[in-house]
Amino acid sequence: MGEEARLTLVLGGARSGKTAFAEGLVAGSGLEPVYVATGEAHDDEMADRIARHQSDRGPTWRTVEAPLDLAGTLRREAAAGRFLLVDCLTLWVTNLMMAGRNVDEEADALGAALEAGVGGPVLLVSNEVGLGIVPDNAMARAFRDHAGRLHQTIAALAGTVYFVAAGLPLKMKG
Amino acid sequence: MGEEARLTLVLGGARSGKTAFAEGLVAGSGLEPVYVATGEAHDDEMADRIARHQSDRGPTWRTVEAPLDLAGTLRREAAAGRFLLVDCLTLWVTNLMMAGRNVDEEADALGAALEAGVGGPVLLVSNEVGLGIVPDNAMARAFRDHAGRLHQTIAALAGTVYFVAAGLPLKMKG
Amino acid sequence: MGEEARLTLVLGGARSGKTAFAEGLVAGSGLEPVYVATGEAHDDEMADRIARHQSDRGPTWRTVEAPLDLAGTLRREAAAGRFLLVDCLTLWVTNLMMAGRNVDEEADALGAALEAGVGGPVLLVSNEVGLGIVPDNAMARAFRDHAGRLHQTIAALAGTVYFVAAGLPLKMKG
Repeated sequence: MGEEARLTLVLGGARSGKTAFAEGLVAGSGLEPVYVATGEAHDDEMADRIARHQSDRGPTWRTVEAPLDLAGTLRREAAAGRFLLVDCLTLWVTNLMMAGRNVDEEADALGAALEAGVGGPVLLVSNEVGLGIVPDNAMARAFRDHAGRLHQTIAALAGTVYFVAAGLPLKMKG
Repeated sequence: MGEEARLTLVLGGARSGKTAFAEGLVAGSGLEPVYVATGEAHDDEMADRIARHQSDRGPTWRTVEAPLDLAGTLRREAAAGRFLLVDCLTLWVTNLMMAGRNVDEEADALGAALEAGVGGPVLLVSNEVGLGIVPDNAMARAFRDHAGRLHQTIAALAGTVYFVAAGLPLKMKG
Repeated sequence: MGEEARLTLVLGGARSGKTAFAEGLVAGSGLEPVYVATGEAHDDEMADRIARHQSDRGPTWRTVEAPLDLAGTLRREAAAGRFLLVDCLTLWVTNLMMAGRNVDEEADALGAALEAGVGGPVLLVSNEVGLGIVPDNAMARAFRDHAGRLHQTIAALAGTVYFVAAGLPLKMKG
């Protein structure tokens, strides 16, 4: 199996049901499901939400946190017999920007790691954020540009790409 | 015919042509068309716009207003031989928020009414609003979350779901 | 060949890869490629970006500027054996608004020119901007309405319409 067949991208808007759809794909694979969370619990509300989602996924899922070193985490965790679900790329881009990292370099490094193959199948979830009015805020514009470029990089490498709206998947590739 | 075959959701962006597309579906059905307006004429500009749209639809359409009690209106108005067009769900969510209602409870009640069947075919139009940058404003974020969850609920119940862009429909389900 | 077969619309979000996809369609046609730029170099950053894109396209492309008189430029430049790529319609709408022009009249005039036929194939690229939250700003709302109406006009005339996300085209028409 080529590396591209092991890589899936699920794009969608806010509250589009993209994560639930992605969880269904991973759970239905029969492989050991691993949830790679890019979000961090900065406050009680966020901690509650993370705990609730973890409990919703049930005990078969293991959760690992990867707020910044996503490529390294994928190389460490991916393996034959396991299916990694990364939720989500846009939060990872936010974390990189907050940490003052060079997002384009980090995105290229992630792309290179995925292209070389990380040892097992990976599904990446991300928010499409480029279909509204140009934001006034320069930081928001930079974020939107980083996210859009990253989506193009990952979609070019992926074997399968879905766009999810209202909980319904539309296959864009594969 | 199962209830799901009687329910259609038409999603689209601002000025995407979603309402014109929906009106064409209803008018082409040969059933008596009823326009269920969730918008209210709060000022002269809005009143003018509503009157112009009503005149554009022509005399075969009857218009009923349902700014808040959408489930009740559908139960009262839906009937065999009639096709109801609800325009639009996002305006209904806005009205509920403005009136201080519990949007999730109202959305669940609408879903339950539609699932039980309201007596005739219904087409619901709504704005997809979750594909831009996260809004700064907490109210706008809450609105976006409510709309996204409602779209998932309705799409799961609907027999047919369209996404409209530039006046062109893309069938997502059905 | 009917005029509609000569007209292509490529819609997509910010950094969706829509221009690269459109360039590939034009370059792959074997016709003489002409880039019709609606953007103007108002500052050094923009001038740099324009020069870089021109150099990326390579020496086979000729570039003409059409910040306002798009219909006239298309009539002058289009010809059998040439393929014009207009990048992009949303920037043209912005220029018209900044210049105080009547956007709906200009959009109708562009539609009429394209419907009558301009002498050769034309591909128009544009940003879909209507899928986020309603903007606070009245100017942004007017821009969004103008862009949405223009997209409907062009899509109705076009033989082929694509929606591009993450660099992947989805055919909406044709």
